[in-house]
Amino acid sequence: VRLRDLGEFGLIERIARAARRAGSGPAVRIGIGDDAALLRLGAREDLVVSTDARVEGVHFRFDWQSPRDAGHWALASALSDLAAMGARPLGALLALATPPSLDVAVFDALLRGALSLGARCGCPLVGGNVARAPVLSLTFTVLGAVARGRALRRDTARAGDRLFVTGRLGETALALRRAEAGGRIRHRPVPRLAAGRALVGLPGVGACIDISDGLLADLGHLEEASRVAFELDRARLPRAPGFEARCARVGARPDHLLAAGGEDYELLFTLRRRGPGEGALSRRLGVRVTEIGRAVPRQPGAGASRARGFRHF
Amino acid sequence: VRLRDLGEFGLIERIARAARRAGSGPAVRIGIGDDAALLRLGAREDLVVSTDARVEGVHFRFDWQSPRDAGHWALASALSDLAAMGARPLGALLALATPPSLDVAVFDALLRGALSLGARCGCPLVGGNVARAPVLSLTFTVLGAVARGRALRRDTARAGDRLFVTGRLGETALALRRAEAGGRIRHRPVPRLAAGRALVGLPGVGACIDISDGLLADLGHLEEASRVAFELDRARLPRAPGFEARCARVGARPDHLLAAGGEDYELLFTLRRRGPGEGALSRRLGVRVTEIGRAVPRQPGAGASRARGFRHF
Repeated sequence: VRLRDLGEFGLIERIARAARRAGSGPAVRIGIGDDAALLRLGAREDLVVSTDARVEGVHFRFDWQSPRDAGHWALASALSDLAAMGARPLGALLALATPPSLDVAVFDALLRGALSLGARCGCPLVGGNVARAPVLSLTFTVLGAVARGRALRRDTARAGDRLFVTGRLGETALALRRAEAGGRIRHRPVPRLAAGRALVGLPGVGACIDISDGLLADLGHLEEASRVAFELDRARLPRAPGFEARCARVGARPDHLLAAGGEDYELLFTLRRRGPGEGALSRRLGVRVTEIGRAVPRQPGAGASRARGFRHF
Repeated sequence: VRLRDLGEFGLIERIARAARRAGSGPAVRIGIGDDAALLRLGAREDLVVSTDARVEGVHFRFDWQSPRDAGHWALASALSDLAAMGARPLGALLALATPPSLDVAVFDALLRGALSLGARCGCPLVGGNVARAPVLSLTFTVLGAVARGRALRRDTARAGDRLFVTGRLGETALALRRAEAGGRIRHRPVPRLAAGRALVGLPGVGACIDISDGLLADLGHLEEASRVAFELDRARLPRAPGFEARCARVGARPDHLLAAGGEDYELLFTLRRRGPGEGALSRRLGVRVTEIGRAVPRQPGAGASRARGFRHF
């Protein structure tokens, strides 16, 4: 069965039913089915919104990844931006562009992957759009809320800040290398929403960004926005046990994957000089946190220490 | 010059500069440049959000329409959903998917078309995403605000309501017919935002929808959501002077274009039986309003009086 057999309104009804089964959320006043979705924020909250597109053949391939995992990644990638701002999710919209020949079972799996992650993160699907297109793409817009004036930002690091990262780096890049060598990607990153929310209101928090372009590239974004430079302790970059051995099996350089591999979806953030250390922070954020460097004043005339992550053009 | 010559971050910077020139809005706390945009609603407002994708070759063609007009339409189509809910715009996000070979001048014109309309409607560009794709598409997500509990909806028409439509119908459908016959589309619909906001809080307002799929199809959506049927006075469907003659020149049936032509972006709404007539309503909404029918009880077992508009599959 193909999407064209459902018809446009049949497809929308199928999405609406699956979204209802996955559950709604406390913020949702009107979900799928009207001209727009209606959401209610708390009285002293700001709205946080981000959009992220995933295109078949560019961001995902079904010979590398199951449709269910591709759906998970599409929403995870968008939700990671909410995590980076310290927001709690309110809901998501899906703009689906697809060839009418797409297999309904493949589509159902894509949707299930996204809806399962949404249910786990408190982010119901509240609306969207379906359009015919020659290539499959999923564009998720995610909406979140954060206490007024408390959102985490990129432009608030200061010289002297300590630099931290959540979790472990390089797993996505390594999975991609294995896929290029004929393997499958089974790694499913989970956006660090709880850690981001814990950072909001932490005394002495500086700047924050999520790692999507790769550690060095995203560090460059922090440098640009905050007008500082960073000294990075590369030996401290967190990796899973056996990471080097797994890199060796596909002929990849571990230091390269750790520093330049994209789509880790970990949080990269700074804290003022005095404050909790790795242990206390890890407990507070609910995830292992590693101190990997510090912010220093930018030399006049010197560029930032950018390095290349994934570029679209 | 092609988009690939700018590079991904060069393209993003180009969009950010153009968006800054077009102006920001009172709701915007953080615009383009962080992980997500940050907006502030009023204390007693709900958030309204909708997303709409336009794909080259499906929704627009540069041999039919200038890039500037195509950009205008892409945002207009999304803003029309805010109008249908009675919301005031806060801002928009653009997920751009494009071949790297796209001419920068074409892209600039697309963007200018959207940004001009956004400036006119108080809807600044606050964020987005750029991705490489084999086909050009623009997905606008629009954010708006409406007084709590006062949003216009599809499911609030009642038997006995009078049915109204703003503006004139069939112009888009006629422009498409002319384009198919070798002409160009110069028609630029403007979303009925002011009319939608005026309807919010109008005593006796019933249901509202914008006409995107075509009058009959969207009337069908109102019927489904509100569980009523509509009697339509087809002779009263509003058309521009000379509409029939222009239809005759391209061999189109005027009644068909008026009733089934899509993308009029007019508002279709109901009012309780007693209340203002066409003249008073037109003054209040700032646009000509025509009474075109009424809602009646649905016959048990009878389907709605649906007719076909544009279908994607």
